[in-house]
Amino acid sequence: MISKATLGRIPNYLKALQELPENVSDISATTLAKRLSLGEVQVRKDLASVCGRGRPKTGYNVDELIQSMKSVTNGGARKEAVIVGAGKLGRALLDYSGFSEYGLVVLKAFDNDDNKLGGNVLPVGDMYSYCALHQIEIGILTVPPEAAQEAANEMVRCGIRAILSFSSSHLQVPEGVIVKNENLALSLAHLQLKLNEI
Amino acid sequence: MISKATLGRIPNYLKALQELPENVSDISATTLAKRLSLGEVQVRKDLASVCGRGRPKTGYNVDELIQSMKSVTNGGARKEAVIVGAGKLGRALLDYSGFSEYGLVVLKAFDNDDNKLGGNVLPVGDMYSYCALHQIEIGILTVPPEAAQEAANEMVRCGIRAILSFSSSHLQVPEGVIVKNENLALSLAHLQLKLNEI
Repeated sequence: MISKATLGRIPNYLKALQELPENVSDISATTLAKRLSLGEVQVRKDLASVCGRGRPKTGYNVDELIQSMKSVTNGGARKEAVIVGAGKLGRALLDYSGFSEYGLVVLKAFDNDDNKLGGNVLPVGDMYSYCALHQIEIGILTVPPEAAQEAANEMVRCGIRAILSFSSSHLQVPEGVIVKNENLALSLAHLQLKLNEI
Repeated sequence: MISKATLGRIPNYLKALQELPENVSDISATTLAKRLSLGEVQVRKDLASVCGRGRPKTGYNVDELIQSMKSVTNGGARKEAVIVGAGKLGRALLDYSGFSEYGLVVLKAFDNDDNKLGGNVLPVGDMYSYCALHQIEIGILTVPPEAAQEAANEMVRCGIRAILSFSSSHLQVPEGVIVKNENLALSLAHLQLKLNEI
């Protein structure tokens, strides 16, 4: 399992590797660590989790390393996710361009409020056919807490197998479906706690 | 140090404790775990990190436990944070009510775009005096990557000591200032990775 922290560094590794002169065919964790001003132990661990162990002395083949890293961030193929709930947060995420760094794209949001429809916001009733057509497996849930379970049920019915939930409610999903809660208030509160402890 | 995961469960613990009948003066980790359908080991660890070890047999005094938990989530006092960058995400967070669960409140956003000002969005030029008056220590950074470092510098100048950054750029801050990066794309990408591994 590649950790979230490792995954977060992959775009930087990829950038550094792609900027190497063409005649550089191998690179060691030590060299890569120096280039990125990262700790050597950390880089060694990251590379091992993505691409196994390097060869003694020479390290990693640059092309192989690039391929392994690309395959972790979706194999270069763009993977589409949908948003359920076109409130302010949902619409902010719909406009957010940062997903592409990880080979992800978010093109549509779904809502059951007629006033929110239009542009890239479609009625929830269209979600089933849209997800089937575009083979959607991931959804971002940004509805109010009281509507979250019902929305999650509908997402599961549409074939979504992983839900990134910004709702604070605890969601019940069938086995085989993953839910990751993203609690923005908790992130802020944890920062406050750290500040108190300095 | 209380972990983010533990902190995330504290509102649930608090709710369960406050719902106990008045004549219950002590509670064990085991009982609390059962009430919340959580693992006993996890609850034991959480309570230990918040309130030290319970007494053998009786466990924890309910009032003391409530007080310890409240003091972790800001001692009941409301702590104010500001937002820098009133784009879609900034404005979505300005409207987000979930912060209060952790004794936090976000009342104002600052921006240097005249078109975004009005209501609870103030010009960046007003931030210094606002932060001084309201003793702001925490800020949420939601400006585009290219403006992030400059905005962070200004936040530090305004006395902000902890920054929750939604910008993907790496921020340079003086010693003593904490930066926590919140990368929404990374959260989604990590979920995708987990899905591939099932």
